[in-house]
Amino acid sequence: MAETTTTVEPRLARGLRDLLPEQMLPRQWMIDTIRKVFELYGFVPLYTSAIEFLDVLSGSAGEEAQRSIFKVSNPDRGATLGAPLGLRFDQTVPLARVVAQYAGLQRPFRCYQVASVWRADKPGKGRFREFTQFDLDSVGVVSEVADTEIIAGMCDTLSALDVGAYRVRFSSRTLLNLLLVYAGISEEQGMDVFRVLDKLEKMGIEKVRMELTSGYTDHSGDEITGLGLSTQQVEKIDHFLAISPYGSGEGGRQEILRNRNEIIDQLRDLFASVPRASEEIDLVGQISRHLYALGYGDDRAVLDLSIARGLAYYTGPVFEAVLLDAPEYGSVFGGGRYDDLVMRFLGEPVPATGASMGVDRLLAALVDLGKVGHRKATAQVLVLNMDPALIDDYLAMTYELRRAGIRTEFYLGTEKRIGHQLKYADRCNVPISLLFGSNEKEQGTVTLKDMEMGRRKAEKLSGREQWIKERPGQREVPRAELASAIEALLAQIET
Amino acid sequence: MAETTTTVEPRLARGLRDLLPEQMLPRQWMIDTIRKVFELYGFVPLYTSAIEFLDVLSGSAGEEAQRSIFKVSNPDRGATLGAPLGLRFDQTVPLARVVAQYAGLQRPFRCYQVASVWRADKPGKGRFREFTQFDLDSVGVVSEVADTEIIAGMCDTLSALDVGAYRVRFSSRTLLNLLLVYAGISEEQGMDVFRVLDKLEKMGIEKVRMELTSGYTDHSGDEITGLGLSTQQVEKIDHFLAISPYGSGEGGRQEILRNRNEIIDQLRDLFASVPRASEEIDLVGQISRHLYALGYGDDRAVLDLSIARGLAYYTGPVFEAVLLDAPEYGSVFGGGRYDDLVMRFLGEPVPATGASMGVDRLLAALVDLGKVGHRKATAQVLVLNMDPALIDDYLAMTYELRRAGIRTEFYLGTEKRIGHQLKYADRCNVPISLLFGSNEKEQGTVTLKDMEMGRRKAEKLSGREQWIKERPGQREVPRAELASAIEALLAQIET
Repeated sequence: MAETTTTVEPRLARGLRDLLPEQMLPRQWMIDTIRKVFELYGFVPLYTSAIEFLDVLSGSAGEEAQRSIFKVSNPDRGATLGAPLGLRFDQTVPLARVVAQYAGLQRPFRCYQVASVWRADKPGKGRFREFTQFDLDSVGVVSEVADTEIIAGMCDTLSALDVGAYRVRFSSRTLLNLLLVYAGISEEQGMDVFRVLDKLEKMGIEKVRMELTSGYTDHSGDEITGLGLSTQQVEKIDHFLAISPYGSGEGGRQEILRNRNEIIDQLRDLFASVPRASEEIDLVGQISRHLYALGYGDDRAVLDLSIARGLAYYTGPVFEAVLLDAPEYGSVFGGGRYDDLVMRFLGEPVPATGASMGVDRLLAALVDLGKVGHRKATAQVLVLNMDPALIDDYLAMTYELRRAGIRTEFYLGTEKRIGHQLKYADRCNVPISLLFGSNEKEQGTVTLKDMEMGRRKAEKLSGREQWIKERPGQREVPRAELASAIEALLAQIET
Repeated sequence: MAETTTTVEPRLARGLRDLLPEQMLPRQWMIDTIRKVFELYGFVPLYTSAIEFLDVLSGSAGEEAQRSIFKVSNPDRGATLGAPLGLRFDQTVPLARVVAQYAGLQRPFRCYQVASVWRADKPGKGRFREFTQFDLDSVGVVSEVADTEIIAGMCDTLSALDVGAYRVRFSSRTLLNLLLVYAGISEEQGMDVFRVLDKLEKMGIEKVRMELTSGYTDHSGDEITGLGLSTQQVEKIDHFLAISPYGSGEGGRQEILRNRNEIIDQLRDLFASVPRASEEIDLVGQISRHLYALGYGDDRAVLDLSIARGLAYYTGPVFEAVLLDAPEYGSVFGGGRYDDLVMRFLGEPVPATGASMGVDRLLAALVDLGKVGHRKATAQVLVLNMDPALIDDYLAMTYELRRAGIRTEFYLGTEKRIGHQLKYADRCNVPISLLFGSNEKEQGTVTLKDMEMGRRKAEKLSGREQWIKERPGQREVPRAELASAIEALLAQIET
């Protein structure tokens, strides 16, 4: 390789990205935490092929989703691949295929999936063409306990992730269907009405009212066509929406004025004349009752009749979670019951309920909230390479620590100066550096440096490499007590 | 959805597959175990985009690898994607791109990657077009300590995975280069000679000798062209290969006759007349010395001069691991030093060393060796739904156990009969079932059933649902002691 003719530019296509260690470390922690919650619930892991037949992917996707599918091909092996292929754009369609395909699958099938999905959407800030979803689903379960578990699991997940205050809102598509009957709206017009109601939080009640009736002209001059509902119909919708849990506070921070029991009572009054309303309300009432019994109170599990969830395929309870300290991220975790999704493959409905979390979005929110650090290292200790003649000692100490379960790196870079090696530890956020030179060897000691304390003290001093003169955050310990001294220091640092 | 016109057949293209829970559970355990080993070593996680520009992927791949790349496209967004795209076929090329692309990346960069790679190879038994690789790499490290760490890490991984006896073989490409000088073989012919030597284990020494000289006709009548080496040259290669660590045993089970020190001494004698041989041998000698010092003896870290490793890009030490109880799986973990790989992007060499593990292959070997179970469940306890009137009790117990850290599932299926619910627990390998009916409620107890013990006893009995009459493996415990009783039972079961 004496001469290199041309080099290839190292780059990625727009909307694609790499996850470097400082992005991967909080992400792994997050995924491991969520996995642990749902494994406690007895959910089992599933991974589906990234590449699917296009006809499997296409059917249930909307037109925009259809266009966003990445096509996959191989000219040399086309014949052995069969029909056209694409990359999965969500994990729900592949799950429905799996449920239809494997007759031997256990029922109920309560599974979680965490994997990449790909969408060739227009790239934009925070929008990537490959992103990670965490999905959980209970398939083959009619019982409302399955929906209860999803809501409870969402709460437990957000608590385990230490996101601060959060609220899981739930309702049911069937309540909206009752509203249609109550307000005399046809089933055909129902989806349009739901679509408009879905904008409530974003647009406010006034604009929603106008869009439900005669329409309006928005601030950029666009005509928003109205659905042509009558004043009477809109009044009835108003009565429904007035059964709100919230007080008058700002956005997601709104105070809870009505508890779930009160909302259910008012709902019963409102729909007293609607046939079969009682059973549908009972379903939501049971979920609420289970949640109370299990300790999920009104502070975090809120019956919010205004949530509609955009997707057309929900058939029963729907849920979504918002972070009260980061409401601008919207719903970070949402889902619902979708009894019809497997229909497309089996020709018969299979009861199913589930939720999906956008790992990237929630992680971004956690970063904003200062809940995750910026570590670049897994190592807890960096053994400095101060004197190449002592390499056998360095390796012995490194392995002694590793075998004691302490994550340890021996400095293998090209920097010879101790100050530069310490800067590497600092840059990677390794909390402890281990210094061992001929002095320490003679005295049978090692020097441990608490990098954080060292940094804080060094900031107050002036001059370069103050650490050598002042030794802030350093302590000498007997060589024989290396592992236990580091364990004690780590315990201090980590509290 | 009153009428379904046509259904889509749920299926995957040839060579693709799903990983169902019983496949995912041992795989996750395996990946978590390997991750833990390399995090102890201070390696950091990296994930690269699944989709790369084709010119980034292509350069360093052989012709066969080139043809196996899956192309990726999107007609609607083509313009925003730029040049042609493909799916990654390994993790080394993307790593080289990442190292070249991000100037701010820490050096040394010691990272691990675990992700899918895609190759449109001809499908066959155990060969899939999407498979998982676990890669680890030290980039920016000249020191032989980095190579030592890879070998030691391979040993620690295989020990942690409890694979039984294993052997990590290592050597160095540079020793083979010395052989070329010693035997008077040109550098150009060198790669062909290495390719033939690589077949040694599979073809045996006789066929290798023939292929090195005048060629031969194989059993299917194909002409194998010889490389035309002289008898003298082949004799010199024989002398080199005679410095073997092994005795006369079968395959990977061969006894170790020569320790690493002896091999190094004989190598020094053989290459006494070759210029610069001493330094190259020193490198291997230092790795061996470090390994001895850290407790990696001749039983598992073997200096084996015959390993060449197929890939052309190795430039220094090479390593591969074999399982002595499953030698038919060949090398389950292998790699080497590849200082030139980043060259293609940067125009200058970057020292790097690493190894890659085929997760699927090693997992298959572990299944064959009976080292992983066939669990379909994460749950440790199944709470049976014996009496719908007691649902509040069931949910309370379920959450009590989950909050005690015990993975618990409440039976949500449609089976009403206890025997069938127990069969579900059995099929999914949930170790404990929890029975609670009106009797237990009255008495303030719960009944725990150890499924394994129950099964063993039931096998000896005859008749259906013997468990009801005989209650093998069942015990009643006070309701108030539920969690502690289950913890105690799990501790018994798991030992």
